Amino acid sequence: MATEHRTAAILAVGDEIVLGQSLDTNSRWLSQRLFDLGIVPVEHATVGDDLGAHAAAFRRLAERADMVVCTGGLGPTADDLTRAALAGASGDTLVEDAGALASIEAFLKERGRAMSPLNRTQARRPSRAAWLPNGHGTAPGLAGEVGACDVFCIPGPPAEMRPMFEGHVRPRLKPPTDRAVRTRALHCVGLGESDLADRLGSLMSRDRNPTVGTTASGGVVSVRLRSVAPGEAEAERLLDADEHEVRRLAGPHLFGADGETIAGAVVGRLVARGRGLVVAESCTGGMLGAMVTQVPGSSAVFRGGWIVYDNRAKVADLGVPGALLGAGGPGAVSREVAAAMAEGALRHGRDRDADTALAITGIAGPEGGSPDKPVGTVFVALARADAATDVRRFSMAGDRESVRRWSALSALAMLWMHLAGAPATRLLREIEATTGVSGTGA
Amino acid sequence: MATEHRTAAILAVGDEIVLGQSLDTNSRWLSQRLFDLGIVPVEHATVGDDLGAHAAAFRRLAERADMVVCTGGLGPTADDLTRAALAGASGDTLVEDAGALASIEAFLKERGRAMSPLNRTQARRPSRAAWLPNGHGTAPGLAGEVGACDVFCIPGPPAEMRPMFEGHVRPRLKPPTDRAVRTRALHCVGLGESDLADRLGSLMSRDRNPTVGTTASGGVVSVRLRSVAPGEAEAERLLDADEHEVRRLAGPHLFGADGETIAGAVVGRLVARGRGLVVAESCTGGMLGAMVTQVPGSSAVFRGGWIVYDNRAKVADLGVPGALLGAGGPGAVSREVAAAMAEGALRHGRDRDADTALAITGIAGPEGGSPDKPVGTVFVALARADAATDVRRFSMAGDRESVRRWSALSALAMLWMHLAGAPATRLLREIEATTGVSGTGA
Repeated sequence: MATEHRTAAILAVGDEIVLGQSLDTNSRWLSQRLFDLGIVPVEHATVGDDLGAHAAAFRRLAERADMVVCTGGLGPTADDLTRAALAGASGDTLVEDAGALASIEAFLKERGRAMSPLNRTQARRPSRAAWLPNGHGTAPGLAGEVGACDVFCIPGPPAEMRPMFEGHVRPRLKPPTDRAVRTRALHCVGLGESDLADRLGSLMSRDRNPTVGTTASGGVVSVRLRSVAPGEAEAERLLDADEHEVRRLAGPHLFGADGETIAGAVVGRLVARGRGLVVAESCTGGMLGAMVTQVPGSSAVFRGGWIVYDNRAKVADLGVPGALLGAGGPGAVSREVAAAMAEGALRHGRDRDADTALAITGIAGPEGGSPDKPVGTVFVALARADAATDVRRFSMAGDRESVRRWSALSALAMLWMHLAGAPATRLLREIEATTGVSGTGA
Repeated sequence: MATEHRTAAILAVGDEIVLGQSLDTNSRWLSQRLFDLGIVPVEHATVGDDLGAHAAAFRRLAERADMVVCTGGLGPTADDLTRAALAGASGDTLVEDAGALASIEAFLKERGRAMSPLNRTQARRPSRAAWLPNGHGTAPGLAGEVGACDVFCIPGPPAEMRPMFEGHVRPRLKPPTDRAVRTRALHCVGLGESDLADRLGSLMSRDRNPTVGTTASGGVVSVRLRSVAPGEAEAERLLDADEHEVRRLAGPHLFGADGETIAGAVVGRLVARGRGLVVAESCTGGMLGAMVTQVPGSSAVFRGGWIVYDNRAKVADLGVPGALLGAGGPGAVSREVAAAMAEGALRHGRDRDADTALAITGIAGPEGGSPDKPVGTVFVALARADAATDVRRFSMAGDRESVRRWSALSALAMLWMHLAGAPATRLLREIEATTGVSGTGA
């Protein structure tokens, strides 16, 4: 048993990963979490479903780090070998755990399923290891030792892995006590990573404490701060000072910290202002509604949506004038139709106290582009009960999925800027804005 | 020098990867490419910018595989240590290569930049290694040896790594000539991994050829086949035979192969039957619509949707009887309301030739559960113009996001089973089915 966890190694197991059929995202996530806790990851390794290779990896990594987290190989089938590999690496034998068995049985029973002999193997563990409860699946985890190294084994599916790490691994961790490491992420929308880096300037030099870095993912650009200090209070104070400066430099683009999402920030501000939101989606097909309703408590502000991918639905459900869609009109992907969709949604949403509407229409590809309106052309409209409709044209890059994600995100960014009191802010990938356009005369 | 490359190891280098700041996608890409060429990846490893750890990784992996591909650590700065690590692992010394230097100079000159002392270090290589040209950046690659193992080092940025692999590593590879390796994935919905394994039975024994394994991800369970044979035709024939058997054993649960999705399979079948689909979503908030419209060409069958997260929207947009929602009624999360939502959507969709409607209402959490209807309780209804409405009650596990994903997926699975001619198939996490229920008398 390690007295302190200063270093960690991460082991991912599975033929599907080592052969390239699946992308391992667990190792990155675990590294971030451990590093945030002050434990330094020193190596990632991935081996296939091979008992010898897996046990050898356990033994080797146990020499290299104070602790190992292993993901995968805990399923019910013959190629799930983590239980046996841990026993092998620690010179132990497998026993059936009555508590684990009862937990699997209860999980299955709750879902109207019976225990199979395969599920029963999931209750096995090395005799000197403990089992870790899994609230989201049948595979219990394991906490054991190989030599002086603490080894934690948790399932591969991220929806099971993450809560198990937080609930059952993290409480068993022993980060170094002679120093405190603290991290904070600050999230921005509507600007690019290099724009943000330009704004941050010398904050990003590598020899500072805190260190300041940027990452970009799916339209959100994040500033990551990491401070090291003798004590927690000092580490937090260093972060607070830098956060203050980053907020000043990023301005209204900054919407939240750490686990916050742009949808969550928008919902929070709509709640605070007592507003009601409706959405009208063409090319995104429901993705914007799905993002908003992903926020717990969004029911306080989300008043509904219309997925009007089909032009007949645009007319029938939202009252978009047929003339806009027909020959000679501007067409379904136009500022006029975006405005008509948002204004129609607002009109239909009045019976449920909606006063804010977002609409998206665009060409997600791969087909449907033209020289005037290539794939990636997207119009987003924001209509409000108390102000003129704002319509922006965007040029999104990437494949169908990227264009759709960026479209939904840009709609939220546009609403965020209005709510943040910076309605004129030009957004990343925006190529033209028009305020006061109306599609319906409503 | 290995006479043949039967096995490979992949090494990724960089603090940003091992600390979790960046996600390594190179190792997966390289594994896929190597495996397609008949070379079996046996391990991935990631180490930080640390000379000792990097050289040790080269030596260890050289014992484990016939070849190693290393990405990263070839930049111009002090933390780029791949050149030195390869020299250290092979007992060699670094020399400056005139050809590499000229190539870097030419690359910079073309872009109006001058050679810096830092760039000059990129022309160094172990004396017994060769340099590999890089058409997209300043970092040359390396081809060297550690013991009998061939080692290829290429830069980390995917835009440089991929063309260098194709242009300069691949021609140096020596895949086994005595065998061909082929893989195939077959995807299923509506059953658990252990159910599927039970059906596959002895197909999954580890000494077969093809090998047959299963993986589960987000509600889809996949069967992975891998054959090894003296020639490609024979390897394909082995896969075909096993695919035939897997299809027989999985029955209607199997919906597609390799890159196919359940939404794609459902859309394909709706297109083939000339049907039109509408959706009504409460707890999923648009996610089902987003999944369907993610399929290119879904516009041929998708006729629109209503996001009726708010009860007032259920009444106003879909005609759900208010009495079902009020005190004394079954409530918003009930079989009656699911049926009324689907039937209302169908009625409203008739003007655009919809004949099939899916509706979802449930409790995604974290709030809103009750003893009768805990978080995870979800009703899915399928209404059709030509058949009685089918409503199923599910008990979903996991957090809000998981409950919502599983709900949307289960709705697609339910429709798939109907389209596959197996309407009575009980689905994973389904706890009760009722056919002929109607919420509206429509």
